[in-house]
Amino acid sequence: MKIAVTYLLLFFVLCITSCKEDVASTDTNKDVPISNTSLNHVEPPHWWTGMKNNQLQLLVNHTKIGDFEPKITYDGVSIEAVHQADSPNYLFVDLLISESAQPGKFDVVFTNVNNEKLTHTYELKSRDKKAEDYIGFDSRDAIYLITPDRFANGDTTNDVNDNLREKIINRKDDYGRHGGDIKGITSHLDYIDNLGFTAIWPTPMLINDMPQASYHGYAITDFYQVDPRFGTLSEYKELASKLKEKDMKLIMDMVANHCGSKHWWMEDLPFKDWVNQQEALEADKPLNNSNHRRTVNQDLYASKRDKKEMNEGWFVRAMPDLNQRNPFMAKYIIQNNIWWIETLQLNGIRQDTYPYPDKNFMSDWAGAIMNEYPNFSIVGEEWSTNPLLVAYWQDGHHNKDGYQSNLRSTMDFPMQKAIVDALNENESWNEGLVKIYEGLANDFAYTSPKDIMVFPDNHDMSRIFTQLKGDVSNTQMALGLIATLPRIPQVYYGTEILMNDFEKPGDHGLLRGDFPGGWETDSINAFKAQGLNENQLKMQQFISKIFKYRKNSPAIQEGKTIHFAPFMGTYFLFRNFGNETLVLILNKNENPITVDLKRYDELGLNGNQLINIVSDEQVTWSDSLTLNSRGITLLTTKK
Amino acid sequence: MKIAVTYLLLFFVLCITSCKEDVASTDTNKDVPISNTSLNHVEPPHWWTGMKNNQLQLLVNHTKIGDFEPKITYDGVSIEAVHQADSPNYLFVDLLISESAQPGKFDVVFTNVNNEKLTHTYELKSRDKKAEDYIGFDSRDAIYLITPDRFANGDTTNDVNDNLREKIINRKDDYGRHGGDIKGITSHLDYIDNLGFTAIWPTPMLINDMPQASYHGYAITDFYQVDPRFGTLSEYKELASKLKEKDMKLIMDMVANHCGSKHWWMEDLPFKDWVNQQEALEADKPLNNSNHRRTVNQDLYASKRDKKEMNEGWFVRAMPDLNQRNPFMAKYIIQNNIWWIETLQLNGIRQDTYPYPDKNFMSDWAGAIMNEYPNFSIVGEEWSTNPLLVAYWQDGHHNKDGYQSNLRSTMDFPMQKAIVDALNENESWNEGLVKIYEGLANDFAYTSPKDIMVFPDNHDMSRIFTQLKGDVSNTQMALGLIATLPRIPQVYYGTEILMNDFEKPGDHGLLRGDFPGGWETDSINAFKAQGLNENQLKMQQFISKIFKYRKNSPAIQEGKTIHFAPFMGTYFLFRNFGNETLVLILNKNENPITVDLKRYDELGLNGNQLINIVSDEQVTWSDSLTLNSRGITLLTTKK
Repeated sequence: MKIAVTYLLLFFVLCITSCKEDVASTDTNKDVPISNTSLNHVEPPHWWTGMKNNQLQLLVNHTKIGDFEPKITYDGVSIEAVHQADSPNYLFVDLLISESAQPGKFDVVFTNVNNEKLTHTYELKSRDKKAEDYIGFDSRDAIYLITPDRFANGDTTNDVNDNLREKIINRKDDYGRHGGDIKGITSHLDYIDNLGFTAIWPTPMLINDMPQASYHGYAITDFYQVDPRFGTLSEYKELASKLKEKDMKLIMDMVANHCGSKHWWMEDLPFKDWVNQQEALEADKPLNNSNHRRTVNQDLYASKRDKKEMNEGWFVRAMPDLNQRNPFMAKYIIQNNIWWIETLQLNGIRQDTYPYPDKNFMSDWAGAIMNEYPNFSIVGEEWSTNPLLVAYWQDGHHNKDGYQSNLRSTMDFPMQKAIVDALNENESWNEGLVKIYEGLANDFAYTSPKDIMVFPDNHDMSRIFTQLKGDVSNTQMALGLIATLPRIPQVYYGTEILMNDFEKPGDHGLLRGDFPGGWETDSINAFKAQGLNENQLKMQQFISKIFKYRKNSPAIQEGKTIHFAPFMGTYFLFRNFGNETLVLILNKNENPITVDLKRYDELGLNGNQLINIVSDEQVTWSDSLTLNSRGITLLTTKK
Repeated sequence: MKIAVTYLLLFFVLCITSCKEDVASTDTNKDVPISNTSLNHVEPPHWWTGMKNNQLQLLVNHTKIGDFEPKITYDGVSIEAVHQADSPNYLFVDLLISESAQPGKFDVVFTNVNNEKLTHTYELKSRDKKAEDYIGFDSRDAIYLITPDRFANGDTTNDVNDNLREKIINRKDDYGRHGGDIKGITSHLDYIDNLGFTAIWPTPMLINDMPQASYHGYAITDFYQVDPRFGTLSEYKELASKLKEKDMKLIMDMVANHCGSKHWWMEDLPFKDWVNQQEALEADKPLNNSNHRRTVNQDLYASKRDKKEMNEGWFVRAMPDLNQRNPFMAKYIIQNNIWWIETLQLNGIRQDTYPYPDKNFMSDWAGAIMNEYPNFSIVGEEWSTNPLLVAYWQDGHHNKDGYQSNLRSTMDFPMQKAIVDALNENESWNEGLVKIYEGLANDFAYTSPKDIMVFPDNHDMSRIFTQLKGDVSNTQMALGLIATLPRIPQVYYGTEILMNDFEKPGDHGLLRGDFPGGWETDSINAFKAQGLNENQLKMQQFISKIFKYRKNSPAIQEGKTIHFAPFMGTYFLFRNFGNETLVLILNKNENPITVDLKRYDELGLNGNQLINIVSDEQVTWSDSLTLNSRGITLLTTKK
């Protein structure tokens, strides 16, 4: 309790600045449907009737709210329990929303022993869409990953916000804000669509009111606010609806592991264990970083110490590590994510740093979402090149510890590495293309390989063109392969124009570079293919050709896969569905080579006319095929 | 049939030499209990009453035996079916041996249409031991692997056998025969026992009547004959019984994938599909080698062609690839292996090249053996550093294709590589000791990690001292670790005296070097620790200390494992059972380092007196521990 008192003092002192800022930043999002601002925070700001889970827990934050008793008089809504917190400025109110409850507004009246009253009007909305109609991304999709600050500046008026801590816009600073925003994405959906992608995954666009490097979005300071420099909630909703018009999907990037150190609750934490290492934090002692030994989640022999260091260690000092073992925190995160799914009618979630939060919570979290939206998709990030870990996290896998993740999709870091190694290495018995062949052979370990997301790179690693040492043919091979595998492909914005980070390979600020044409003053406009060099144009057309093909290809989306061990520097992979057979050939020979096609007789293609997907040329499948230069060939039997 | 006729002619021509040789080589094994030699081959040469499987299929090979009809008059034994083969010189006779059948001899009378008769006396023996009492090797054991030709020459009179094709003994030729034999092993069991090993695995000792490089034993030319240069069946039995006297176990190395090209049946194959690619063989066309793409056994997408090339390709021209999909061949191999288990009262089998034969056969094979001997052990060799494959082959694993291997033990090639990499690499975030830590973390993928065999090297790879670049401390670390892990450790003979292959790393002939002292004229005698240098003596004592400790250590054999992420160049692994806690510390620091033991508080060792297993020194477990030099420390709470 001593801590709580100290806290309270601190709260009053800091409230002068920080609480004001919270209100201020809220003001920048005038359309956020908070029905009442007389209380500091009531979260979720509203809810819906007719949810499968009829329970709702409100977080109420206000000075001395802990001394108050809430009452509700509304048909079908009852208060099941009221929980005080360690801080006197919080209440957690458990509501039961019965099936008979109608959409509408009602007052929650808080009364204390002195009969002082606080009233908050809460709203239950009707659902716009049936839960079953939230259709997740799957192997029919191809995902375009965007760092919003760096893609396109659609609204220059929101670039700088004086109410927020990082006020400067500076495109010359790789770690500064560059001005890209939601409008920038919305206004270029035609471009993305025309590249053949069916879904977008922007990295987080919730408010990061951090003093520096706030552009990346992973240090969220309010889980219910859009960052005003990216735009408003209306604009986010507009993006969602424009995507729907184009039959495209929206994936939201969620962070359950941590928040930003300037999150409003950091000034007055509700419980003693709201964040990990809170005792040290409050005593201003040094905090331990995570040991990043992610295998503790699976390791039968992991020490308690390693587990604790992994799960309770912080990522960085600027990102307080949330304690999901606190049941109020757990509910908070789940409800917040459901709020966004319902508000934006999302198709999917990408969950950051999957192995870092408490894994039992992660299972509950994914379970709660999938229970509410049975056809939804979630992809979790476990950055490991070990297929055993990728397999462990996918729902339905037989795990020794009985763990069930409820997670539909995992990320194929093993295959990403296999592809890069395969293309960079010289061919030999156990190097080169065999890495792809044997990597794909590992699919037997996965519950559902086609639900796994594969990618040539992402926003946290060196760009594929850099990883492949600036080799255009190899980059095409990587992209053609990920478009063709029995997977969900994901491509990072700018890969289509060979964006790179040669200058400082792997440097986060640099690899998340500005997309040329996203700013009005840009001399090159890649959206309009203006000012691009020949290789860039070739790549852009290549990506567009293959992903547009993919969009209408049952063979790729759900077909059978057959592949052959690499032979004479070539690798053949076939996808087949009904009459459609797609042939992918990777050829690493610099000089022309004639391939004996009898090797592939079992596909029954002999005598068929095939079409080269990229060049539109006709090819007759006969006894042999001559490949003139190193690169990829994609052929189809489809007319 | 044309083939059969050609064959018959060939058979008569060759019989003059080769059949004589078969008889000759049989003669050298006078105690082989073949009850009758009037027929060329009746296999198995005898059988037992009271087997769980009451069926027995006899392979009968004799000129034109296909024209004959067998009859048996013996209580409890009946002929269920008689199968003709493609060659007229074979019959396969299915017997049913009822529970009531008594041990004894009986005549099998073969009669043809001309009423010509051939009589073969067959014997059913009584079983010496209950099936349940065949106790396999497990984590309580430590296995000493021996290449018999290179370990010790116990009987110089059998070194050269003029009836066999390779007649020369030449110790200067790495690929020639050196004279080591069964007697050489039997007479040094005290040495092996004193090193702390509880089981031996000699590489195959069945006859390899091959013109060259016959020393290795994997090109078997008669599956029922001991190689006379190794000794007689009596001597093999004596080895088995001497081992039993010492409470040690015997593991036999079996080869189901291939035989030697000079196997007697190669002159007249019973069926058109007795060996793979038989048609090409008989037409004298070139044969395909295996593509060695072992992943086809698991790969969901493997082409038929890759599977065929893998499973039907030959290892080398000198080793015909047996076709286990021929049901007669399948039964032949299973019965042969059971015959040896029963004859030598084996404890276990090591099966060569596990992924090469038909995998459904391998499951049937292991299933048949485990059904007959429920407590037996089999370890299969899948040379892959991919834990997914190691996991796939172990019985009880949930495999996507539903495959159940019936195989209790697999080989830990992934851990072998992890250990070597861990010790050779410099320490960093993701290199060095972390390879061991993360390698062991993969155990969650295995049905039963403790039943997996781990080894620093074996007879097919560069010796561990060579792999670790001649570093004695690192070699001790590797050995100490494999002795301590929750596994079945296997050590190759001579590792205890740092045998190496620096001269030609990985050269098979060289790494299977002669054990000094195994030959009377040797100037160095490692069996008696005579003439060894300081490092060799140190290593020999080290091995003896740790494996003797292991022998009586429930903590190692069946204890709980706890380990910690590497820290400051050290790795701590704990094994615990009841009051016994074993501490393994690997330290890669060249200079003295003081380790904070509070990190390991959860083990509750504070204040305990521990004993250094190797030096016998007492160590008090307190706040810190100083490690003076790079190397291994093994401490125990056991008095």
